[in-house]
Amino acid sequence: MALRRVLALAAALGRRSCCSKPSLPPDFVEALRTVVGAPNVSTATAVREQHGHDESMHPCAPPDVVVWPQAVEQVQELAALCHRSRVPMVPFGTGTGLEGGVNAVQVWAVPAPLTPGALGAWPCPQPRVPLCQGGVCFDLSRMDAIAELSLEDFSVAVEPGVTHKALNKHLRGTGLWFPVDPGADASLCGMAATGASGTNAVRYGAMRPNVLNLRVVLPDGRLLHTAGPGRHPRKRAAGYDLTSLFVGSEGTLGFLTQATLRLHPLPEASAVTIASFPSVGAAVACTVQVLQAAVPVARIEFLDEVMADACSRFSEMGLPVAATLLLELHGSQRSLAEQQQQTEEIVHQNGGSSVAWAEGQEERERLWSMRHNAWYAALALRPGCQGYSTDVCVPISRLPDVVVETKQDLQASNITGPMVGHVGDGNFHCILVFNSQDPEEAQRIHAFTERLGRRALAAGGTCTGEHGVGLGKRTLLQEELGPEGLDTLRSIKAALDPHNLMNPGKVL
Amino acid sequence: MALRRVLALAAALGRRSCCSKPSLPPDFVEALRTVVGAPNVSTATAVREQHGHDESMHPCAPPDVVVWPQAVEQVQELAALCHRSRVPMVPFGTGTGLEGGVNAVQVWAVPAPLTPGALGAWPCPQPRVPLCQGGVCFDLSRMDAIAELSLEDFSVAVEPGVTHKALNKHLRGTGLWFPVDPGADASLCGMAATGASGTNAVRYGAMRPNVLNLRVVLPDGRLLHTAGPGRHPRKRAAGYDLTSLFVGSEGTLGFLTQATLRLHPLPEASAVTIASFPSVGAAVACTVQVLQAAVPVARIEFLDEVMADACSRFSEMGLPVAATLLLELHGSQRSLAEQQQQTEEIVHQNGGSSVAWAEGQEERERLWSMRHNAWYAALALRPGCQGYSTDVCVPISRLPDVVVETKQDLQASNITGPMVGHVGDGNFHCILVFNSQDPEEAQRIHAFTERLGRRALAAGGTCTGEHGVGLGKRTLLQEELGPEGLDTLRSIKAALDPHNLMNPGKVL
Repeated sequence: MALRRVLALAAALGRRSCCSKPSLPPDFVEALRTVVGAPNVSTATAVREQHGHDESMHPCAPPDVVVWPQAVEQVQELAALCHRSRVPMVPFGTGTGLEGGVNAVQVWAVPAPLTPGALGAWPCPQPRVPLCQGGVCFDLSRMDAIAELSLEDFSVAVEPGVTHKALNKHLRGTGLWFPVDPGADASLCGMAATGASGTNAVRYGAMRPNVLNLRVVLPDGRLLHTAGPGRHPRKRAAGYDLTSLFVGSEGTLGFLTQATLRLHPLPEASAVTIASFPSVGAAVACTVQVLQAAVPVARIEFLDEVMADACSRFSEMGLPVAATLLLELHGSQRSLAEQQQQTEEIVHQNGGSSVAWAEGQEERERLWSMRHNAWYAALALRPGCQGYSTDVCVPISRLPDVVVETKQDLQASNITGPMVGHVGDGNFHCILVFNSQDPEEAQRIHAFTERLGRRALAAGGTCTGEHGVGLGKRTLLQEELGPEGLDTLRSIKAALDPHNLMNPGKVL
Repeated sequence: MALRRVLALAAALGRRSCCSKPSLPPDFVEALRTVVGAPNVSTATAVREQHGHDESMHPCAPPDVVVWPQAVEQVQELAALCHRSRVPMVPFGTGTGLEGGVNAVQVWAVPAPLTPGALGAWPCPQPRVPLCQGGVCFDLSRMDAIAELSLEDFSVAVEPGVTHKALNKHLRGTGLWFPVDPGADASLCGMAATGASGTNAVRYGAMRPNVLNLRVVLPDGRLLHTAGPGRHPRKRAAGYDLTSLFVGSEGTLGFLTQATLRLHPLPEASAVTIASFPSVGAAVACTVQVLQAAVPVARIEFLDEVMADACSRFSEMGLPVAATLLLELHGSQRSLAEQQQQTEEIVHQNGGSSVAWAEGQEERERLWSMRHNAWYAALALRPGCQGYSTDVCVPISRLPDVVVETKQDLQASNITGPMVGHVGDGNFHCILVFNSQDPEEAQRIHAFTERLGRRALAAGGTCTGEHGVGLGKRTLLQEELGPEGLDTLRSIKAALDPHNLMNPGKVL
């Protein structure tokens, strides 16, 4: 009976057998080639495998085929093709994600289009029919136009192939910049899809408030401009905020093929300093007081004593082994001096070490390079091992407790996991360094990350501040939002992608 | 035949006849009384009429009944009651909206629950059956708790009865404040529902980035916490951003019964000045240069020469009849001095008048009181007439052209319409003063507002920067978003409110 139901379900899908690795419809790859040209389609194993994973520890899940559209019209045609044949689609930018958002995981058949009413059992009705091993990966990196730069409007439109470093290079000499910087040189559309943030978010915000409009190819190939075609007012109150809905949707609602971004004036001057504290609590108290004093701090980064030591040795800095803050201030020369004085006072009140300011570009870059190399500094603690970054975010008042409990957990679990954090936002990462070949250790890592996620939830926080849900945090997301929240997400997914074709298996 | 179809449709609804003013189901009002107690239910004409309009010119459309729930559980029970009987629900805060968002307008039957696929003809299938003359108005003003104030987390949770003035009074002495100020003393949940902003948005943002979580009663009575129950991290990347979706949804997706807000540190010092310019272009150029110079201006308000003159006479200020900017700076004493100097230089470069700074509280309040009385100053230009405020928002680069064309249009149309604007955001209002008893003039006003909306759209802007769509801008919204945008809004509405019960007839 089970086999008969499986076959019936597969027949209902109109294209697939019930084998565990269904193939694409006949002539489908040829149809893709007709749209973008043969050189822009690949089924080579190496290419597929390269596109089947990001920088996370989730195992590679290659797509069936990779396509490189060159223009939005091609994305539309390709999507329409996939939609007609019910083939899953996975958007790919730079592959620098950290939660498996591009892995073309096996997903399971939904016998009929999703409807809000039929979501109880979604996405896995029984019996489960493998819908697809991979589907089509849309590598959007060759769409790399920078358009509509307006210095007066502080806005620019970028295609998915443009990274934040490329944009800031393009902006050189204009007096403007785009401050959101997640560390990796990610695609700006990918950053929008993830809801990324990074070190500057405490002052300039994460991606969401910095995106004015998105040009989206919907799952059926139609073109949506989330704020209307060609629009970029600084604010709107016209209908539901579709821009904010697609920011952070992790490719599950459509392809972001252009993002209109809000730019910021470059600060006249910057200064960076580093200070050591007697405890985590003192470093966090210092952060809260800096924020309460309305010092417009641009970056305020925390390193626990393990990370400070690792970074210090990796980058040869000679830092104390102590809870550490790395602070950056932006302003005019004169306002900077005042911010520096206020900051120094607050640092000292909290038992921080004496503060020396790096104002020259080289010196500032040396300090930030140390911070940006934190990942490699952590990996150097156990050569040959793999890294995984956790990403919880909690209300700042709860940060000291959560950090201290997490450090105790690391110790009790015998896990190497130095901490860095965007402490002004309450967001911190443990860079877990482990031997992925050791199943027992991998299991310990998994159990630790689940406990950490639940600790953040219990403290009124979130399981992900900036990396997204992807594959690994779907269970935690359910606990974070509760059944009504998850039902609402599913209703929206079902409304905009009723056949569950866009990056299936992610988020929900 | 038409009658038969109408009757069949009405029968399908299970509760209504086909008369033009269908009544509530029998015993329905009694059921409402059972939930909230008889004193908290009213069907009195005066009460219903008081709840049937906001401050706009849209004609009063009273609900069938008004209820005053005292707790979120009561809102849930009432909503479940309405949902079961398919009675429309209209949320009501302070009634200070400007686009008819609380008017309980007659809506039309939808024969079956909305589905994303059936939206082509929505919301008005033929033949049209009046579904309801009004439905139930939920006056939420008696739910007025302020809870979960956290000075360290810069956050607080407010119920719908709390206005922004009441919150700031509550925060006195804490060193924190909530800066979003739409002018009227609106409910904070109402401001969230509208996506309001106002004079401080150029520095502190509009409502959306200042809402961390919303407790929503869904149309069927279930309770949703948009960021998960009890959570208030400063940032999240966990699933679609439901908070941003409900901000600006104008009561069409659910009841906002609590908003967790982001607070800001009070500035140490403030200074206000007023400057006259030779032209609109010069005033706007000054604004752009202030923003480009990264002066963290807190408010930058534009008054055209008609409004400057009207305000000057109304508030006895003796201002020149000229394009005018009203600027406020926030900062420490020292940074304020620098901001003032930078601002003065830029004002002078653009031909602005010499600048005197009001730093004392009384003097500052006098200047802002003049600005806040702009509405009454405009009405005083034609005593006995009515006012209506337009609300377009355009990219700043297009602002001078759009303002100049609009002024020419006002003159050619023989309309009194002085202008004020949150010029740092590209958002400006014409306060149209007209005799609503004169159909010809009302028609001219209507035609002018449509032209103004289309002028803003042609300039890459929006038909509403902060007042919302409500009843009056539904056609312009279609033009602003295009068919794919509107389809997407409708799909979301259909997914979350399939029976079209929440504030029907608004936005879509």
